Amino acid sequence: MGSATPRISGYPSFVKIVEVGPRDGLQNEKTLVSTKDKVKLINLLSDTGLSSVEATSFVSPKWVPQMADNADVLNGITRKEGVSYPVLTPNLKGFNNAVAAGAKEVAIFGAASEAFSLKNINCSIEESLERFRPVCEKAMSLGVRVRGYVSCVLGCPYQGQVNPSTVATVASKMIELGCYEVSLGDTIGVGNPASTLRMLQATKKVIPVGRLAVHFHNTYGQALSNLLIALQEGIAVVDSSVAGLGGCPYASGASGNVATEDVLYMLHGLGIQTGVDLDKVIETGDFITKILGRSTHSKVAQAFGPKKTTIPLMNL
Amino acid sequence: MGSATPRISGYPSFVKIVEVGPRDGLQNEKTLVSTKDKVKLINLLSDTGLSSVEATSFVSPKWVPQMADNADVLNGITRKEGVSYPVLTPNLKGFNNAVAAGAKEVAIFGAASEAFSLKNINCSIEESLERFRPVCEKAMSLGVRVRGYVSCVLGCPYQGQVNPSTVATVASKMIELGCYEVSLGDTIGVGNPASTLRMLQATKKVIPVGRLAVHFHNTYGQALSNLLIALQEGIAVVDSSVAGLGGCPYASGASGNVATEDVLYMLHGLGIQTGVDLDKVIETGDFITKILGRSTHSKVAQAFGPKKTTIPLMNL
Repeated sequence: MGSATPRISGYPSFVKIVEVGPRDGLQNEKTLVSTKDKVKLINLLSDTGLSSVEATSFVSPKWVPQMADNADVLNGITRKEGVSYPVLTPNLKGFNNAVAAGAKEVAIFGAASEAFSLKNINCSIEESLERFRPVCEKAMSLGVRVRGYVSCVLGCPYQGQVNPSTVATVASKMIELGCYEVSLGDTIGVGNPASTLRMLQATKKVIPVGRLAVHFHNTYGQALSNLLIALQEGIAVVDSSVAGLGGCPYASGASGNVATEDVLYMLHGLGIQTGVDLDKVIETGDFITKILGRSTHSKVAQAFGPKKTTIPLMNL
Repeated sequence: MGSATPRISGYPSFVKIVEVGPRDGLQNEKTLVSTKDKVKLINLLSDTGLSSVEATSFVSPKWVPQMADNADVLNGITRKEGVSYPVLTPNLKGFNNAVAAGAKEVAIFGAASEAFSLKNINCSIEESLERFRPVCEKAMSLGVRVRGYVSCVLGCPYQGQVNPSTVATVASKMIELGCYEVSLGDTIGVGNPASTLRMLQATKKVIPVGRLAVHFHNTYGQALSNLLIALQEGIAVVDSSVAGLGGCPYASGASGNVATEDVLYMLHGLGIQTGVDLDKVIETGDFITKILGRSTHSKVAQAFGPKKTTIPLMNL
């Protein structure tokens, strides 16, 4: 679809989607998914044309029981050439386990909010980043790529407002540690196009835009408009989650990650290439939501139904 | 909330919301709402600060049984100073009935798709507009304001693509007929930011932007990003529906009108004044969705819950 649509100026010609459904998504779903179904989900996703599918997390099963089968998942999937399968690693122990299970890319994380950092991992932002130094050093020595996540970039459930300059500082630190890319996450989905713009403008002053990604949650319905601003600011890497997998622990009943299907619809409508087949993503979303026993959070999947896209994108 | 937020450049300073829930919304809900509850809904909405609340439709009850109580609704509401209560009128008979019931503003409608016009009202676009000439002439003579709706501006369920130049032509014709404003409607919600941009650029060539409004449906989740483009193009009048009242007859199970709450969240986040109290709109949405026995389509209302907004808008 994307190839037939004329592109309008002021937007990237290609956007890379980082699919986070199997990790960030399933981690925040109430229903436990079997290892077999996780493997199938990841395999289906890597058959859609996605080049990055976050596979699992090597955190302690005490913290995140949903990801206790991390090594089995990573060993179970059919690795497709050209597809990266990053995994989350909280520390050196997790990193070592991930590498032992075959991980070639890992992700580290920090918050742009001191309150969130203290509440979630019981240390300051600065301390949390220093803990990742040995992980990053070992990763460099092994040729393992490291991606950074910054959470709470547009607001925090504990302290409220988050300063754009703090986001810029935390993201810079991650680049210094060796991350090839930093994903800026609106963890609670409270951002709007203006706060997105201010945060990105501050961060772009210290990091080249080509090393930044965005990660929006649709809790307040703002994800796609925030994404539109990000595209206008030159961002060309977008995290999203098939079927909008994942909830929002800070607003009960609310949705979390923006749905990959809805992101693709907008990008393809803008004439932006992604290399991803929307129909196949819709089918994959249908597969996993049936397992979870819930309806999809993707508006596009709801409108098209579980089958193929029958109405063409209408954009003269 | 809006007053405390710094405005970013390139957007209107004030946006007028035209609330269409009681008419366009309820007309597309399966559950019939009593006259008393419709009156209460309209009164609650006019207490939120909204300056325009579309009240009902004077079409034949054979076509639209949900609006058979049009005169009773119009006579039942408490008219608030400064608030307009437009009603839909399909022809001179409907117009006369509306004026007899006290209407001071009416709305006429046409499609930007020949296929839609033929299928829905059994005549060409040109013929449909000519039928409104006597309505507009009589309205002018009585000092009744006329607003125009153009449907299918970004796509049609029957013919697929719609040419932006057709939208411009139909909208121009409505201005010539005497409409003070024309609302451009993405009736089936298939638009994206690029098609929105092309349609608006074509229409702005022939009509001053100050006489254009936009009317988005969120069927494919694109409403707010399309609205963002419209704001960037200078549009300062936006139709929306409390709780996202209304469905989409062309995609079963899909949502219709963009929710007023979600629009307000974005506008206020952008530092745009609206004069509307988001908390009161959320309460009104809670009232009407309880009557309809369904959950709200507003993400903002879902995230905040039925009570007041407890989390501040986070936008430094």
